Order: sequence, then C-alpha cells, then structure tokens
Amino acid sequence: MKERLKKQKKFILEIDKMKTIYRQTHIRGYERQENDAEHSWHLALMAFLLSEYANEEVDVLHVMKMVLIHDLVEIDAGDTYAYDAAGNATKREREEKAADRIFGILPQDQGKEIRQLWEEFEKGETPEAKFAHVLDNFQPLTLNDDNDGRDWKCHQVKKSQILKRNENTPQGSRDIWECMEELIEKNVREGNIIEDC
Amino acid sequence: MKERLKKQKKFILEIDKMKTIYRQTHIRGYERQENDAEHSWHLALMAFLLSEYANEEVDVLHVMKMVLIHDLVEIDAGDTYAYDAAGNATKREREEKAADRIFGILPQDQGKEIRQLWEEFEKGETPEAKFAHVLDNFQPLTLNDDNDGRDWKCHQVKKSQILKRNENTPQGSRDIWECMEELIEKNVREGNIIEDC
Repeated sequence: MKERLKKQKKFILEIDKMKTIYRQTHIRGYERQENDAEHSWHLALMAFLLSEYANEEVDVLHVMKMVLIHDLVEIDAGDTYAYDAAGNATKREREEKAADRIFGILPQDQGKEIRQLWEEFEKGETPEAKFAHVLDNFQPLTLNDDNDGRDWKCHQVKKSQILKRNENTPQGSRDIWECMEELIEKNVREGNIIEDC
Repeated sequence: MKERLKKQKKFILEIDKMKTIYRQTHIRGYERQENDAEHSWHLALMAFLLSEYANEEVDVLHVMKMVLIHDLVEIDAGDTYAYDAAGNATKREREEKAADRIFGILPQDQGKEIRQLWEEFEKGETPEAKFAHVLDNFQPLTLNDDNDGRDWKCHQVKKSQILKRNENTPQGSRDIWECMEELIEKNVREGNIIEDC
C-alpha cells in the first residue's frame, strides 16, 4: 500500500471514534444522546438543503467540508456543552492540542487543509463559517423542540443563554434565525426554556 | 415560518431516523453495530480525503451529496445486508416506494434533485457514482479488517462474494482496489474470509 494512502487509512480509522462521543442533545424520540458523527452528517445534509438561506452566497462544498470536520478535535478534547462555563474556559487549549495530534496523522497537505478549515470555523468570520455555525445551532434546536424541550429543561437553560450563543446567527442567515426565534419563543411559552427575570 | 422552510425542516427531522438504522458492520472496537447516519458521515469525509484516487476526475461536491443521501431509503426499506440473497431480491421495490415517500417530503425541486442523485448512485455509471460505490465498499472493509474480521466470520462470508460485490470497484479506483485486495488476501490467510473451494 502506498505510504500516503496508509496515512489516510489510519486517519479514517482514527476518526471512527466520533461515533462514541456523545453530545448533550438527544436524537428524535429522546431514546439516547446523539454522537458527533451523526451530528456532523446531519449538518452536512442541511448545508446541502439550506444554503439558499445564507445571507451571503456560500461555497456549499466548503461549508460541507467544514461541518464534516468541525468536531473532530472532540476525539481528544471531548464534547463541551454549550452552556458549561467552566468547560468552555479550557476548551480552546484542549482542542488545539487535539488538532495537532489528530490532523497530524494525515499527509501534511491534507492535515494543513483540515486545520485551516477548523480554524476558519472557530473564527466564524467568512460567509461559509458563519453559515456553518447557523447549522450547528439550528440542528440541536430543532431536535430539542421536537423532543418537547427536554434537554433544555434538564439543563435549566435560560433564554438569555440561547440568545447569547446565537448572537451571530442572524448574520449568517436571517431566514433561519427567524425560524429559530419562533421555536425559542414557543418553548419559552411552554416553560421548556426559562424566561430571564 | 415560510412554507418551503417548513417542508425542509420536516425532512430534516424525518431523516433523523437514520441514526437508528443499524448496519451489519460494527464500529471500531466491535462495541456495537454502526448506523446509517454514522456510515454516511464517514463516506462523505472519505470523499473529501480520497478523491485523488478516483480513476476519472470527480466533482467532489457531487460525490459528497450522493454518499450523504444514498441510504435514506433505508428509513422505510431497512438495511439489506450485502450478502443476503433473499433480501436483495425485493430490495429495489421496497426502496423505490421509500424514495417516493421520503423525498416527497421536500419541496419539489429538492425532492427531484435527491431522487436523481439516488438513482445515479444506484445505476453506478457516472464517475461520481462509481467512486461513491468504491467508498461504500472500502469503508466497511477497513472497519471489518480492523475488527479482526469478526463480521465476516460471523456471517461466514466467502472471498467470491466479496469479489462479486466489488466487481466494479477497480473501475472506480485502481489504487483503492489495490489496497482492498491486500486487506482481503490478509483476511483470507487469517481465516476470517472463507477461501472458495
């Protein structure tokens, strides 16, 4: 086997671990938590279906690549829940280290490409990165709403926390943000999301 | 919420069922069977990393879309194991019906686009479809090899069955087929795949 393909095969097997990293969000029906591989697949398909709603024109392939790889660092760094303040304080450092090791398995050119895609996602400045973040926030919100808001209730999430997390979402997609706002308000009314005093 | 986005959101929730459709292949470590969502994510990332090995130049976005949606019909039709003769006899009919219902949830233009992508994958004639099939066969083979061939042993798979299933793989990628042949021969030597008399 060629040396290059050997490295790629090693990486492909390494990232299988994404199937065992569980997020706080539950799958539809609330049967169990969703894992990172499933979440990433869902986002990639949403990139395909919803790119028409991005405020700025986006390169769909670029968005797809980004969402497919955006959580790979969690193989070493673990999933940090969106509303876990302590975890989020050390997140960047843990994820940088993970990126060095995991992307380092690939041939250099591809390791570099994926690193750049991940950094771009983290910065959230390009049209593609902004839109990828919209999807990353919209997907768990729809699941959560469909599961009668049980994840929000379980973590006693406040409306202000969701709004803070989504402060850049309207910049990525006004249309999707409008839909998200509807769902947030509905869940506030139903008592699933805590209305701030 | 706009009517169009409402349909897309309904579809996005519907396809969450992919996370509960289990394949015969086990994830790395043999802890449990792999589901369709995870499998599709893995293939999409492989399309990104391995497209350089396609015999003919491929449109990577097109391959990615294809592998992301290629198993959606299994939401209704279920997973048919590659070496299940009886199941494969009725597969096409069951999957056609599933495609009508599932893709029909989307706005008409997108339902049509996904239907065409799925038909293209099924026919396996374009460079993109041929390459998508290479990935669809390579991924479980690497997992199976890494799991000491336990899935092959469990189903008493013969070398001739694997070769038959992969009869078009060299047309999609000579390089990947070469790597697959190495893995097949190794597993025949180790007694994980049955050598035909």
